[in-house]
Amino acid sequence: MDKPLILITNDDGVMAPGIRHLVKFMLELGEVVVVAPDKPQSGMGHAVTITNPLRLEKITVDGGHDEYSCSGTPVDCVKLAVNKVLRRKPDVLVSGINHGANSSISVIYSGTMSAAIEGSMEGIPSIGFSLLDYRFDADFSQAKKHIQNVVTNVLEHGLPQGICLNVNIPAVDVSELKGVKVCRQARGNWEEEFDHRQDPRGKDYYWLTGRFALHENSNETDEWALKNNYVSVVPIQFDFTAHGLIPEINKWKFHAE
Amino acid sequence: MDKPLILITNDDGVMAPGIRHLVKFMLELGEVVVVAPDKPQSGMGHAVTITNPLRLEKITVDGGHDEYSCSGTPVDCVKLAVNKVLRRKPDVLVSGINHGANSSISVIYSGTMSAAIEGSMEGIPSIGFSLLDYRFDADFSQAKKHIQNVVTNVLEHGLPQGICLNVNIPAVDVSELKGVKVCRQARGNWEEEFDHRQDPRGKDYYWLTGRFALHENSNETDEWALKNNYVSVVPIQFDFTAHGLIPEINKWKFHAE
Repeated sequence: MDKPLILITNDDGVMAPGIRHLVKFMLELGEVVVVAPDKPQSGMGHAVTITNPLRLEKITVDGGHDEYSCSGTPVDCVKLAVNKVLRRKPDVLVSGINHGANSSISVIYSGTMSAAIEGSMEGIPSIGFSLLDYRFDADFSQAKKHIQNVVTNVLEHGLPQGICLNVNIPAVDVSELKGVKVCRQARGNWEEEFDHRQDPRGKDYYWLTGRFALHENSNETDEWALKNNYVSVVPIQFDFTAHGLIPEINKWKFHAE
Repeated sequence: MDKPLILITNDDGVMAPGIRHLVKFMLELGEVVVVAPDKPQSGMGHAVTITNPLRLEKITVDGGHDEYSCSGTPVDCVKLAVNKVLRRKPDVLVSGINHGANSSISVIYSGTMSAAIEGSMEGIPSIGFSLLDYRFDADFSQAKKHIQNVVTNVLEHGLPQGICLNVNIPAVDVSELKGVKVCRQARGNWEEEFDHRQDPRGKDYYWLTGRFALHENSNETDEWALKNNYVSVVPIQFDFTAHGLIPEINKWKFHAE
């Protein structure tokens, strides 16, 4: 059997340690092509670049396989990879390993997960991986077994059209990891606090900061799984429709003329 | 009764004709505060600005009410408005009027809709409006009656926690509009075609282009409604979990050690 073709991207930039580890893990499973942003693109959500042209440069990092550095967002990288780089649809797309969590509501802001969602929109079984450690020199090696395990499962089982996986990994020693828990996105939000400052010329500016607020304690959520040292696996879809609400809003009075 | 407090933003920039019309329509319904990007931010999805500071400048456009120009994305605008500009939670957030459609899958790329989704995440009843005309000098006046109608309904009925509305308006004469249809996001995707060019120094670059491909013909969708001259109203939620798939993935073999 041919080796599976694995497309790799991320949102921390093509030289971030997280993606370098992911490349090594994937080279043990198949043929690897990397198309990733040339700079950090955290928090870019599902942004695409339409008012500027995109640059795509072939680079050599660890040798042997194809790697490209792209001036755009994670979603741009996926679109360019599928349309301009790859000769056939990859068997799996993996995004990450993100430096830091993408659980609960963070999925909507996450460039890592947007790349995976875009992959699923293109019909590619896609997975986003995040380690709960923001540091540049986080220890990604402990995640290897679980990441290879999830990718192997996706290669074996596939994923339904339009579904990708959001995988978060606790930053604890591998001996403390209890296993994998398939769960749902916890209800929560970011409570912003803007840090208000003045520049040397006396003009105001703001830094976006904030802290995550969890709104529930169910053991069915990703937040619960991560807090209890499980790898969380959330199946993700991109239908934003609140189907259950359509009948209710249909009762409103919309005067057509 | 006090006038409702209406927060207005968009993704085409604070001086775009679409938002200028929306401001005029909303001044007839309540007290208006505008916090919108200082430049076009189309296609920014749910991006937030975390690696750069944000600027917020008070500006005077049509006088009388507060307006701010913000250096960030539509989502940044909503966060700054709620945390730094407004003294109380607004009664409604309206985003737009976007120059061009945000139906079907486009909701995931749309800065207009991301602002509305962020509003709903902050507990504000929120609505995104888009007119199916990309031109700078599109005729927004025809949309007035329907936009005021939807906003009045939301002020009267409210929206459940975490729900916002995606409203698209066909670019036809008001006499041809058949009314409002509450519907769901159609299944479809953007088929990209990258326009490959070389700059004057011989280096490659790419422009993202493409065309929308609709995958279904159901009359329950926003695409059907718009094609048949209805204003489409889709209730939108931000839970990405594919709940129905959790039992299936639970059957996979995840080897914990």
